[in-house]
Amino acid sequence: MSQTYIDELKDHIGSEVTLKGWLYNSRSSGKLVFLQLRDGTGIVQCVVFKGNDEEVFEKAKALGQESSIIVTGTVKEDSRSSIGVELDVTGLEVLQNVHDYPITPKEHGTEFLMDHRHLWIRSKKQHAVLKVRHTVIKAVRDYFDDNGFTLADTPIFTPAACEGTTTLFEVDYFEDAKAYLTQSGQLYNEATAAAFGKSYAFGPTFRAEKSKTRRHLTEFWMVEPEVAYSTYEDMMDLGEGLILAIVERVLADRRPELDALERDISKLEAISAPFPRLHYDDCVKMLQEGHAKGELENNFEWGGDFGAPDETYLSNQFGKPVFVHHFPAAIKGFYFEVDKDRPGRARGPPPPPRARAG
Amino acid sequence: MSQTYIDELKDHIGSEVTLKGWLYNSRSSGKLVFLQLRDGTGIVQCVVFKGNDEEVFEKAKALGQESSIIVTGTVKEDSRSSIGVELDVTGLEVLQNVHDYPITPKEHGTEFLMDHRHLWIRSKKQHAVLKVRHTVIKAVRDYFDDNGFTLADTPIFTPAACEGTTTLFEVDYFEDAKAYLTQSGQLYNEATAAAFGKSYAFGPTFRAEKSKTRRHLTEFWMVEPEVAYSTYEDMMDLGEGLILAIVERVLADRRPELDALERDISKLEAISAPFPRLHYDDCVKMLQEGHAKGELENNFEWGGDFGAPDETYLSNQFGKPVFVHHFPAAIKGFYFEVDKDRPGRARGPPPPPRARAG
Repeated sequence: MSQTYIDELKDHIGSEVTLKGWLYNSRSSGKLVFLQLRDGTGIVQCVVFKGNDEEVFEKAKALGQESSIIVTGTVKEDSRSSIGVELDVTGLEVLQNVHDYPITPKEHGTEFLMDHRHLWIRSKKQHAVLKVRHTVIKAVRDYFDDNGFTLADTPIFTPAACEGTTTLFEVDYFEDAKAYLTQSGQLYNEATAAAFGKSYAFGPTFRAEKSKTRRHLTEFWMVEPEVAYSTYEDMMDLGEGLILAIVERVLADRRPELDALERDISKLEAISAPFPRLHYDDCVKMLQEGHAKGELENNFEWGGDFGAPDETYLSNQFGKPVFVHHFPAAIKGFYFEVDKDRPGRARGPPPPPRARAG
Repeated sequence: MSQTYIDELKDHIGSEVTLKGWLYNSRSSGKLVFLQLRDGTGIVQCVVFKGNDEEVFEKAKALGQESSIIVTGTVKEDSRSSIGVELDVTGLEVLQNVHDYPITPKEHGTEFLMDHRHLWIRSKKQHAVLKVRHTVIKAVRDYFDDNGFTLADTPIFTPAACEGTTTLFEVDYFEDAKAYLTQSGQLYNEATAAAFGKSYAFGPTFRAEKSKTRRHLTEFWMVEPEVAYSTYEDMMDLGEGLILAIVERVLADRRPELDALERDISKLEAISAPFPRLHYDDCVKMLQEGHAKGELENNFEWGGDFGAPDETYLSNQFGKPVFVHHFPAAIKGFYFEVDKDRPGRARGPPPPPRARAG
C-alpha cells in the first residue's frame, strides 16, 4: 500500500492511510495502546483499541522504542494534537521489534550520544538542528543564485597553503607525491570571479587544529563569494543581504524546529537592515570605554585583533550583526581588511569559523 | 559610478551606463575601434569613434586582450548583435592594460590550457561548461528539496572504506592517527534516512585511482539520495524525475551555453518519461543479439557487468536513459542490485562516475 507521510495527514482526514516509520514512544492504558510514530516528517499519535483487533493490540503492546513498523488506520481530527490529527489504528505490520534501544529518555553524556550519533539524530533536538542547517544552506544558495552568482566549486586537493602551513592536512597522493586539503578556495575564487563577474564556492574546508572548542572544527562547510570590481561597501551590502535572507527563511520555514530547540526567537526577529557599520577606530573606543566602565576585563589596544569577549561586547551594543571595517592591514583574521592605497578594494583571508587564537 | 551588467543592457536602451570587465577581443577600422567587452554575464560590442574623443580612441586602440577596463557609454539597439544591443563609448578607464595574454585565438594543446585553467575559464566554451554545471547542481538540489528530502552532508574524513581499500586516500590525522577521504556517504545516509525518511548528501568524494580517462576522477561531487521504506520501483521513479528535472532546467536556462558548446540539443529534447525499465536478463539478450548482428564486438555473458560499449549499445536502442534492474547480486557496480529474499528492497553501493574497470 502506498505510503502517506505524517506532514500530509491533515489532507487525509477521514481517510484510511498507511504510515511507515519508527516507534518514537508508547504507553498503554487498559484497553488502549498509544503509539507515537515518527517517519522523519513528524510524529503522530496512533491509537490501538483492544476491542478492534486483539492481535494488533498485543503486537502493539509488545513494541520497543524505535521498532520499524507499518501502521494502517483512519485519520481523525484531534485538537489536542500539535499536528491536529491522530490515527485510529486498524492494522500493524512489525518489520523489526527493537529491544534495548540505547538512547532512552534518561540523561546521557555527550560522549555517549556522540558515539551513537547515527541514532541520536532521531531525537527531536538533533533532528531540529539538522533541519535548520538544511534551511540555512538552502537560503545561502538561493541568495547567491538569485543574485547573479555562478557556483564554481574549488578543489579539495590543493598543492599549497592558503591560511598557514601549520594547519594543513597532508594526503599521500600518487607515487610519493603530497597533496593538501583545502583551507579556503579563495585563490581559485578570485580567478573565477574574473571569468564570471560574481561567483561563489560552497564546500568542505579543512584546518588541522586540534582545539576542541565551540569555535574550532577540523572539517567544516564554508561559503565564499567573490565579486569582481566590488568595493568594501558592496561587500557589506552583500553580507547584510545574505544574513537577512538566512534569518527570514529560517523564521518562515523552521518555526517548529526553533520551538523544539527552545531558542529565544525574539533575537532572530530583531535582526533587520541596516546593520551598524563601524570603523575599527570607533570599536577600539567602545571597547576601551567598556573596560573603563568595568564591563570588559581586558583593556583593548589599538592594532590588536578582537577576542571572543570583545566581539560579544560589540554585538551586544546593537542586538544585531555588526560590520567592522578599516581593520589595520597587519591583522590577518576574521574581518575584511582595507588596503589604504586602494580604498575601493576590500580584501583579506576568508573568515575561519572561529575567533583568533592569539 | 554604479555598475550595469551586460545581461541587463536591454533594459537600458538610450541610457548612459558604466560597464566593468575585461577585453575579450578587439579590432579597429579607420576612425573606429570595436571593443568586445565581457563582464561574466555576457559580451557586448563597444564602439569607440575617434571623432568623439581622441584620447579615448587612442587608449582603446592600445588595449591588449583581457585588459581590465571600465567603459561608459550609451546603450544602442542593434539587431546585428546576438544580445540586441551595442555601446556607443563616451569614456574609458584602463585599470590594467594586459600584454601577451597567453591564450590567443590560435589552437593550444590541452596540457597548456589545463596549466592556464584559471584563465581558460574566461573562454566561451569553458565558461559555458561551468554555467551548465551550476544549473545542473541547482536543478538537483531543488528537485530533492522540493520533494521532501533533508540535506545531511556526510563527513569527508572517514575511518574506513566503503568502496574497497585499494582506492582510499590516506590522511595524516593527529598524533600518528590515520583518516581516509570518503568514497561515499552511503553508510551515513542510511542512518540519516532512518531519522528523516528521505535524505540526501551532495559533496566531494574521492577515489585513489590513477587512471586518466573520461570516466575516472580522483575527486568528484556526488549526490546520494536515500529513502526509507522505498522499493526499487520507487527509486526508479525518483531517478527518472531527477534526470527529467535536470534536462528541463538546462534546456530552459542554458540555451545560449548549449549553443556555445555546439551540442546536438535534439538529443536532450528527446528525453521524456517514461524511461525504459529493463530486466537484466532482457539486456543480456539484446547484447547477445547485437553481437550476432555484428554491432557489438564482444559477446556478453550472463552474470557479467556492462562495459562502456555495452552501455552505449543499450542506450542507443532507445535514445533516452534506460534503467536496468535485477542485476545479479554478486556484481558490485553501477546498478541497483535487488536482494531476491527481500524483493521490495533495492540496495547496492552508490554509482561511481565510471564504468567498471574489469
